[in-house]
Amino acid sequence: MTTVHHTSVPLTRTQKSAGHQASLIVQGADATGIVAALASLLSTHGANIVSLDQYSDNPQGGAFFQRTVFGLDGLQAAVPALRAGLDEHLVKKYGLRYTLRDMSVPKRVAIFVSKSDHCLLDLLWRHRQGQLPISVAMVVSNHPDVAEEVRGFGIPFFHVASAGPDKSAAEAEHLRLLKDNVDFVVLARYMQILSADFIEQVGVPIINIHHSFLPAFIGAGPYAKAKERGVKLVGATAHYVTADLDEGPIIEQDVVRVTHAQNTADLMHRGADVERAVLSRAVLWHAEDRIIRNGNHTIVFT
Amino acid sequence: MTTVHHTSVPLTRTQKSAGHQASLIVQGADATGIVAALASLLSTHGANIVSLDQYSDNPQGGAFFQRTVFGLDGLQAAVPALRAGLDEHLVKKYGLRYTLRDMSVPKRVAIFVSKSDHCLLDLLWRHRQGQLPISVAMVVSNHPDVAEEVRGFGIPFFHVASAGPDKSAAEAEHLRLLKDNVDFVVLARYMQILSADFIEQVGVPIINIHHSFLPAFIGAGPYAKAKERGVKLVGATAHYVTADLDEGPIIEQDVVRVTHAQNTADLMHRGADVERAVLSRAVLWHAEDRIIRNGNHTIVFT
Amino acid sequence: MTTVHHTSVPLTRTQKSAGHQASLIVQGADATGIVAALASLLSTHGANIVSLDQYSDNPQGGAFFQRTVFGLDGLQAAVPALRAGLDEHLVKKYGLRYTLRDMSVPKRVAIFVSKSDHCLLDLLWRHRQGQLPISVAMVVSNHPDVAEEVRGFGIPFFHVASAGPDKSAAEAEHLRLLKDNVDFVVLARYMQILSADFIEQVGVPIINIHHSFLPAFIGAGPYAKAKERGVKLVGATAHYVTADLDEGPIIEQDVVRVTHAQNTADLMHRGADVERAVLSRAVLWHAEDRIIRNGNHTIVFT
Amino acid sequence: MTTVHHTSVPLTRTQKSAGHQASLIVQGADATGIVAALASLLSTHGANIVSLDQYSDNPQGGAFFQRTVFGLDGLQAAVPALRAGLDEHLVKKYGLRYTLRDMSVPKRVAIFVSKSDHCLLDLLWRHRQGQLPISVAMVVSNHPDVAEEVRGFGIPFFHVASAGPDKSAAEAEHLRLLKDNVDFVVLARYMQILSADFIEQVGVPIINIHHSFLPAFIGAGPYAKAKERGVKLVGATAHYVTADLDEGPIIEQDVVRVTHAQNTADLMHRGADVERAVLSRAVLWHAEDRIIRNGNHTIVFT
Repeated sequence: MTTVHHTSVPLTRTQKSAGHQASLIVQGADATGIVAALASLLSTHGANIVSLDQYSDNPQGGAFFQRTVFGLDGLQAAVPALRAGLDEHLVKKYGLRYTLRDMSVPKRVAIFVSKSDHCLLDLLWRHRQGQLPISVAMVVSNHPDVAEEVRGFGIPFFHVASAGPDKSAAEAEHLRLLKDNVDFVVLARYMQILSADFIEQVGVPIINIHHSFLPAFIGAGPYAKAKERGVKLVGATAHYVTADLDEGPIIEQDVVRVTHAQNTADLMHRGADVERAVLSRAVLWHAEDRIIRNGNHTIVFT
Repeated sequence: MTTVHHTSVPLTRTQKSAGHQASLIVQGADATGIVAALASLLSTHGANIVSLDQYSDNPQGGAFFQRTVFGLDGLQAAVPALRAGLDEHLVKKYGLRYTLRDMSVPKRVAIFVSKSDHCLLDLLWRHRQGQLPISVAMVVSNHPDVAEEVRGFGIPFFHVASAGPDKSAAEAEHLRLLKDNVDFVVLARYMQILSADFIEQVGVPIINIHHSFLPAFIGAGPYAKAKERGVKLVGATAHYVTADLDEGPIIEQDVVRVTHAQNTADLMHRGADVERAVLSRAVLWHAEDRIIRNGNHTIVFT
Repeated sequence: MTTVHHTSVPLTRTQKSAGHQASLIVQGADATGIVAALASLLSTHGANIVSLDQYSDNPQGGAFFQRTVFGLDGLQAAVPALRAGLDEHLVKKYGLRYTLRDMSVPKRVAIFVSKSDHCLLDLLWRHRQGQLPISVAMVVSNHPDVAEEVRGFGIPFFHVASAGPDKSAAEAEHLRLLKDNVDFVVLARYMQILSADFIEQVGVPIINIHHSFLPAFIGAGPYAKAKERGVKLVGATAHYVTADLDEGPIIEQDVVRVTHAQNTADLMHRGADVERAVLSRAVLWHAEDRIIRNGNHTIVFT
Repeated sequence: MTTVHHTSVPLTRTQKSAGHQASLIVQGADATGIVAALASLLSTHGANIVSLDQYSDNPQGGAFFQRTVFGLDGLQAAVPALRAGLDEHLVKKYGLRYTLRDMSVPKRVAIFVSKSDHCLLDLLWRHRQGQLPISVAMVVSNHPDVAEEVRGFGIPFFHVASAGPDKSAAEAEHLRLLKDNVDFVVLARYMQILSADFIEQVGVPIINIHHSFLPAFIGAGPYAKAKERGVKLVGATAHYVTADLDEGPIIEQDVVRVTHAQNTADLMHRGADVERAVLSRAVLWHAEDRIIRNGNHTIVFT
């Protein structure tokens, strides 16, 4: 979503008339004067910049990335004029793309899961604690195992079986559930491969947690491979899903120390701790518009 | 130095007419429009913002901190007009303070050391590797032990003995060496306490590395205290020196794991690794104007 | 429990006749021949040593610590003869203390908690996953908040109110619940101070999680103190409880990085992640007899 | 060396008649009674066990690994009888292999290096500090760059050029230098591939530091590959060298966090810190006989 040309994310839901904050992500070819044009425009509308992060990957002819969070009384009413100004001063003049989003409206997410519940429960627990500014629209699984637990959190659970090599029926059902309902999808240890067609049709960012320190141990069974190779650290990687399996832009990674005395099951247990921590951070940063995709990389303003 | 009102750090030394970068640190009471005023001023002078970090500790009436790095052809010639503009648009209008510095001129540093050489050698080695944009003006020690090593790096070494409780003669000699010669001082395991009078007279920031995870184990012998208490991690803290021993603003901290099987000497060895890493990061960040002091805290834009 | 002279932990519950493992902890004054005497005794009884860790804090006249895990067919039947041998060859001859425990019988634990549920849920979830070889006998709280969640795990919950300065009624109720029912107690963010009298009467080890990197920020409100001091890492400490508040033997510690941009609430959130990780490790190690107390220190064989 | 059948490492050099310590590494098929036989034998000779670590990779028919450090008055004189006993009670009876080594005699090492000096200097500095129980016999390089620095430490430096694809002349020269002179070789960022023939002929363990978190980014240019892939951590791996490039048994690994804002040169600088830390630990552990090779894995008793 962050790379969509003046995106259509609605600024319409629950916001009140005062004290709102919005995020503004801008990216494109770098040029002198962009920051000034942007800050000036916001100032003209009475916006107070709360946080600003800027990055240029090369001061001479590189790419420009900026995340601005600003407060503005009467944000909703001001949006049309703000968009008109951004179109005029950033898009037309500098050829930049932007995303403007009312941060008081949490992003809606669908969480996909198979049997392992550690990543799912960590997200649901953090959400309940108020640590994650998201709205969990649903949990979807190819197994019924976690249904009761999910519903205990007051969240809809959908079981969509996915047996056999032909995933088209399951994916059609997934699309019916997701279409226009969610802003992003999280694969919280969902052990099914998504088709390129599904990824394109769903049309929202998909975050996956891979249970290894990518690009080491790509594919299935990474902990067994790690044990076999005798590594001294195991890790996890959160990344955006693309049609290339395990090759999408990396959002976050971390590792934990293991020893010769730990077997593959132990590695899985230690690794699960890293998986849930890494995925939670990726979801938080995505929810707060801290991640900008640039080709197969991410800019993460933490 | 970062908090001095339009500082007098000269922009005069070795710079060429084009391609230079400058850092601009601004801090003070937050207000709507500061970022725009600043960016507009830089844009007017043809400056290209390379990096911008901004932080407000409270959007409603808090303090504002910004670090901007910009490129500007003919920087040296443009400085007087730039300063006039900053005085007009930031100081007078918003009551802010700023520091403007030509980053092509490395800060000059004096390194103080006693007998332990691990922090000193790490700084000198990193400097030789081109990792630290500093100019090492001198090394000063109360012991002659490291003289040969320092001179091997082509750096002046001064031995200033410091026996007995009266440090006034030594401090007078230190002041003669330092006055107008350095932009900051690094205490790289210098095991002498500086008097409040000396700290005031030297007039430049002083960075110290304390061999514990402050505020734990304040004072002398922290590794022995850590062993006595049976801790499972030992750490180090880099901080600016104030008249309150071990109480100055913390710049950076880190820790390393230890076990029951390690004695006090082992803790010192493991701790030395952390000390040199932490101090090197603090010196790098100070050299790159990444640290802003705010009362007894630091804002560090890494 | 690990320091009790030939402890009375029963080896009687659910074990089958073959394939059992037992742990044997031995400690006392070091002397030549202890390892041989011990290994010889186990060998005589047909025990197969699975794991052996030994530590002497000083080869010349120091203290000796050993953890041995061994497999023995018909363990239960062999115990009386084994104890007799240990009394003869270790206690009488070398003056050592030992603890022998059937590892197939999980230790029974009572978890005490107040309102914060992150440490509690992490323990319950890990237990359900099979990661913790414990039996959770009950959860006790001075608030009713977590009752439903705990009972969802099929675990008894007891609410024991603890208002006012006089804790004697609450502690009497605690003793009624705990006496002869549990092998250890875990304070999983239980925000009440235990009296010295209670600690003595309960007679089993008590593990606490302190929400700071001890000995920094002893006492209440450590995250606010950490924010006030401007530290760059926050941590957590698991320790055995003694009558000296926050001064008991440290079992495990860890830290997480924080920045100037995080407020006290953020520090609490990041800290909570460390707290649950540290406490879970401490409980696991205690459950597996990996910790030996020695005065105010711990030997941890991980 | 650790896997050699009753090795011929001499126990002859500088030791005095009392207070010596020896390490005894034993490995082979697990069986009941090994620990007792070993401890009994040592006890019979009056040895005092200072440290004992034991590991079985499977209690039922797996492999057995033990590291014992013991003190023994008159160690040198006792060695022949001790070896006879080990041959009798461990080799003949249980089919085990062992290595017995007088720890008062530091292992002799040759350090190979190309142009990057960070790993080399860290080893030399730690050695001078007394942190590494090794004797640095020589430094060998295919470039003359570090000659002066090495000789400043009082260590012989040999420049052996290695131009062109035919390395046979250089390797012949290396063998002349190394043969019977060293107990192990350290490749401290030596950017030449060793031939399988050389590895076999040199006949002592070779430790390499690879500048990536293996098995990710095998081969040349790992930091450029890491930047290209957009990883959030870069690492280093110390491993024993085998004929399979970058595939030998891993000894130690570690990582450091990087961000989008760091270019390939920055990754190299941060990575260099990890490389020297990881290599130093590997060399220390090898020097203290803490590493046992088992096929393509290592058992590391730290």
